[in-house]
Amino acid sequence: MTRIAVLGAGRIGKIHAHNAATLPGCSLAGVADPFGSAAADLAALYACRAEHDPAALIERDDVDAVVIGTPTDTHVELMLRAARAGKAVLCEKPIDLDIGRAREAAADLQRLDARVMLAFNRRFDPSVAALKAAIDAGEVGEVQQVIVTSRDPAPAPLSYLRTSGGIFRDMTIHDFDIARFLLGEEPVEIFAIASNLVDPAIGELGDADTVMVVMKTASGKQCHINCCRAASYGYDQRFEVLGNKGMLLNDNLRPTTLRRFTRTQTEAQDPLLNFFLERYEQAYRAELLAFATAVADGRPMPVTPQDGVQALRLADAALESSQTGHAVTV
Amino acid sequence: MTRIAVLGAGRIGKIHAHNAATLPGCSLAGVADPFGSAAADLAALYACRAEHDPAALIERDDVDAVVIGTPTDTHVELMLRAARAGKAVLCEKPIDLDIGRAREAAADLQRLDARVMLAFNRRFDPSVAALKAAIDAGEVGEVQQVIVTSRDPAPAPLSYLRTSGGIFRDMTIHDFDIARFLLGEEPVEIFAIASNLVDPAIGELGDADTVMVVMKTASGKQCHINCCRAASYGYDQRFEVLGNKGMLLNDNLRPTTLRRFTRTQTEAQDPLLNFFLERYEQAYRAELLAFATAVADGRPMPVTPQDGVQALRLADAALESSQTGHAVTV
Amino acid sequence: MTRIAVLGAGRIGKIHAHNAATLPGCSLAGVADPFGSAAADLAALYACRAEHDPAALIERDDVDAVVIGTPTDTHVELMLRAARAGKAVLCEKPIDLDIGRAREAAADLQRLDARVMLAFNRRFDPSVAALKAAIDAGEVGEVQQVIVTSRDPAPAPLSYLRTSGGIFRDMTIHDFDIARFLLGEEPVEIFAIASNLVDPAIGELGDADTVMVVMKTASGKQCHINCCRAASYGYDQRFEVLGNKGMLLNDNLRPTTLRRFTRTQTEAQDPLLNFFLERYEQAYRAELLAFATAVADGRPMPVTPQDGVQALRLADAALESSQTGHAVTV
Amino acid sequence: MTRIAVLGAGRIGKIHAHNAATLPGCSLAGVADPFGSAAADLAALYACRAEHDPAALIERDDVDAVVIGTPTDTHVELMLRAARAGKAVLCEKPIDLDIGRAREAAADLQRLDARVMLAFNRRFDPSVAALKAAIDAGEVGEVQQVIVTSRDPAPAPLSYLRTSGGIFRDMTIHDFDIARFLLGEEPVEIFAIASNLVDPAIGELGDADTVMVVMKTASGKQCHINCCRAASYGYDQRFEVLGNKGMLLNDNLRPTTLRRFTRTQTEAQDPLLNFFLERYEQAYRAELLAFATAVADGRPMPVTPQDGVQALRLADAALESSQTGHAVTV
Repeated sequence: MTRIAVLGAGRIGKIHAHNAATLPGCSLAGVADPFGSAAADLAALYACRAEHDPAALIERDDVDAVVIGTPTDTHVELMLRAARAGKAVLCEKPIDLDIGRAREAAADLQRLDARVMLAFNRRFDPSVAALKAAIDAGEVGEVQQVIVTSRDPAPAPLSYLRTSGGIFRDMTIHDFDIARFLLGEEPVEIFAIASNLVDPAIGELGDADTVMVVMKTASGKQCHINCCRAASYGYDQRFEVLGNKGMLLNDNLRPTTLRRFTRTQTEAQDPLLNFFLERYEQAYRAELLAFATAVADGRPMPVTPQDGVQALRLADAALESSQTGHAVTV
Repeated sequence: MTRIAVLGAGRIGKIHAHNAATLPGCSLAGVADPFGSAAADLAALYACRAEHDPAALIERDDVDAVVIGTPTDTHVELMLRAARAGKAVLCEKPIDLDIGRAREAAADLQRLDARVMLAFNRRFDPSVAALKAAIDAGEVGEVQQVIVTSRDPAPAPLSYLRTSGGIFRDMTIHDFDIARFLLGEEPVEIFAIASNLVDPAIGELGDADTVMVVMKTASGKQCHINCCRAASYGYDQRFEVLGNKGMLLNDNLRPTTLRRFTRTQTEAQDPLLNFFLERYEQAYRAELLAFATAVADGRPMPVTPQDGVQALRLADAALESSQTGHAVTV
Repeated sequence: MTRIAVLGAGRIGKIHAHNAATLPGCSLAGVADPFGSAAADLAALYACRAEHDPAALIERDDVDAVVIGTPTDTHVELMLRAARAGKAVLCEKPIDLDIGRAREAAADLQRLDARVMLAFNRRFDPSVAALKAAIDAGEVGEVQQVIVTSRDPAPAPLSYLRTSGGIFRDMTIHDFDIARFLLGEEPVEIFAIASNLVDPAIGELGDADTVMVVMKTASGKQCHINCCRAASYGYDQRFEVLGNKGMLLNDNLRPTTLRRFTRTQTEAQDPLLNFFLERYEQAYRAELLAFATAVADGRPMPVTPQDGVQALRLADAALESSQTGHAVTV
Repeated sequence: MTRIAVLGAGRIGKIHAHNAATLPGCSLAGVADPFGSAAADLAALYACRAEHDPAALIERDDVDAVVIGTPTDTHVELMLRAARAGKAVLCEKPIDLDIGRAREAAADLQRLDARVMLAFNRRFDPSVAALKAAIDAGEVGEVQQVIVTSRDPAPAPLSYLRTSGGIFRDMTIHDFDIARFLLGEEPVEIFAIASNLVDPAIGELGDADTVMVVMKTASGKQCHINCCRAASYGYDQRFEVLGNKGMLLNDNLRPTTLRRFTRTQTEAQDPLLNFFLERYEQAYRAELLAFATAVADGRPMPVTPQDGVQALRLADAALESSQTGHAVTV
């Protein structure tokens, strides 16, 4: 039984707490959040301990592992603190918005021989995992092109966007991770364009809301990412892989299988699942299980801080490219 | 080059005339229709001879084969006349509304050693033909269940329905033929229910507009047909075959591949192709080619008058069953 | 909090026990099973009480409601015992294999003013529920035809089939319930054919493994059920509703959304979910929630013993029809 | 009746000749090809005149319009000759491989007030035309992102590729045209990556076989093109348009609607139509009809030489970008 403490009682912390409390092999040892009654409210639901101070929870003897779902600027400090306390860590992305701090943290964690997993949840989605397994089984032969479609249903509040680090570091970073995961090679050249088409207020923050990226690996494999802060039809998450022996496509999910036929149209299905909490519900469960299993069995973490650093490097390079109009060598 | 005369210049005659005029290996030798200027108008389009009297056209030396697309009550007489003149015949279904006359005609044609093909066009639809080929190739193993969905977009005019012979003999007869084609065995027991749900005026004619049929072959294979004179979303033609090794489904066609995603729905496609002229356009071409090829090569006709008799027997049995509430042994 | 006792620790009991233990508003008060260590093993998983004797568990004060997942021949006795003890009941179908005993039990339960829900799980599947809601919202106008496809991946063991009551009462009974649910009217005429095409050993039991049914309501609405004990491609559960304003289709579920494109085929998806435990996982949860909510709120049960009696009547009538070759009036 | 002469009796000339001979309102006046018996063979099929010398055919009085399907390096000369002879012209893409010559030709044609249509066939595909109509009808609101997937089933012969002008000018040029068509704005910035992943022999020609492009218009609209000389599953042509009110997708075509379900997979469909002759059969007909109608009615040409020049500029810019690693301003 892996006894898990959850730091941060916001939207993402609630998911991890629920999963820690209900998944086999896991137990929820406690919840910490410095703001108001968030931790206490969440802890009451699962009859576990609540703390205001994450540090206090980390140090407890009945905690084997911590899940960090706090604001980004606290990730590095909490990861290191947990690592020094000998606790395994599952940390939400990104490590930090600053690539220098992220690299330094990754290096520190390595020196500490820390057991840290970065929470790129999409890798654990059953359909993404099946896609990766099919590639690894050679179903499409040599991978040639990867296409990632990633559109949120609607922009996050401006208050969030203001400190998000920008669309590449906040949103596209997930797509950079999936791209690396599916390509099986590091991109070495990246080009990006960024537009402000969804909400002028986002442009006034100096941020973009609609971007396109192309990347190339050393062996010439190619990847395209298209990413938009808004999609009226729901949370759009599709992945395509072309290889010399075939193609694999991953489609979206819908709440039901109902198809409607009327005088004006046929095959009309439900709108897509609204957002990541619904779309990646299974992925969050599988992610926590993978983490808890790695902790229990002493096996290597399936996603590492180095994966977080690489995704952030690509995000930084994309931002630079979109600003300079030049391709950036990574 | 098979020189083809088309008898009847109505909706179906126009298709056959167009195909005879434009398909490789075929030429349109003439068109006959006793009503007004129908034959002359059609002949003008393709620069061929027009006649009022079908008999006159049949007898011409430059006619190898005749296509009969005239009213049902003229089919037997014209088939026999053409057969006696040594011409090959492609005759629209049904042979006759009366099973006695149909059987007698089939026997007469056999005595004459006539070359007659019955126009069950659906067998020549590329998707139906591929379905049959997959069955014959053993893709689903032993056929166990066949399901035929057959719905017209809207009822024919009452003036037509009044002399149509009723829904089983006029509309479901196509489905009985497809059922025999796909089952690969003759149904020996049939049960049908018939309702008047679309238009009360059809009920006042003593006819039904919505029917369901189940049939069983001697070896226990099963078939269901559902058939309705109206479907608001278009001409619905689907075929399903379950075997002990798998299932095959045939879907409908649409004019484009466009799929629409909006706030309220996803994957919405065009309405179905409106009706049989659009849906079976390719089938009509393939049918005429198959006929012309059999004529030119002296090979057996792919569909025979006996097929027409069998389909009519099933239609009669279905009508009887729907009236008596008993299964009918065929 | 509804405190639930689960009677029967077999396949279906395990699902209900898991759901009772983990769903909000429910708790698992205990598990009973007379056979070996089944109850003890299951109770250990969820840290609840185990009993050999279901009667002992029913009587406990800390039990508000019982779920009956024991063999069919014990259903009536356990339902009545629980009802007399003032406990709410969720009973697996069928009430009994004998229509007389089923009717008598339903009448007894009514006299006792018992709170009993019959477990027709499919009604609670999100896609089926959405289909029903769309019908009720008038999306297809007047319902004209309902088509139910229901195929198991493989036959149950002969030992089970021997006492199952036959395919109509054991398997098709679910489809009869869905048919009534979707038609919104009682069938008054039924016809069925039954074949032995899957396994000769089933025929030797005097049972069929492949059946087709047609039914008609008083107003002429029609329903077709096709049902087979085996489908090589998985558990096939589809529902189709034609109305005068449109059509609704419900499709199957698959474990992932992956689609494969190769030299020989395109769009190839995963096999269907294996069987009812996987396919109706969400339905079982929604069913228990609906039951617990009705218990807690004192509202009417969403499915009643009378629904169980009606489905059984249709099953009996289908069996009679398949044996006599006559339609049966219900 | 528009009397059409076809110059070039190769693969594409044969299509145009067939369509000119069989479409309503068109007639095939003659075929010219300097190589061997190609013109004579084709002319024999349709009982029209054959010439070795295209110039001789252009000058004939019974020719209203010419279709140019000859090698690229003859396009400019033949267009100008036909224009000077007062004939309408439908010319295959590209105008010329050299942007300077293409621009000069476009200017010359304009000075001559010539009636010239450039043969970007995809615009006339029913699904592409429906996509464009849906955009123009405001179905997706403001266009934000366009994604074009364009993969050939297999590379053309090296002998062809050697003089093709390279993948961007030969193959992607169609995608640049579709991008302009769907965006409704001119791209002003373009970036491209090019790899040699399909066949090393293509790389030895100095050409690429796998490319990705991103483009941006002045208002910030974005477009991605992915393009590959090989796709094992067939000729892949998909188009996607995201707007602020929805998304539109265009899918591929297959020869039949058959779907296969087996133990290992479900929904498996046919491979895609092999190549452009099959995929764009309807488009070629609609294109010639649009041309003949514009000729007959004196209306503006639906695609102009200027469209050809713009697509070539984008192709040149993409090539430059892929070689320099810089975005190119157009």
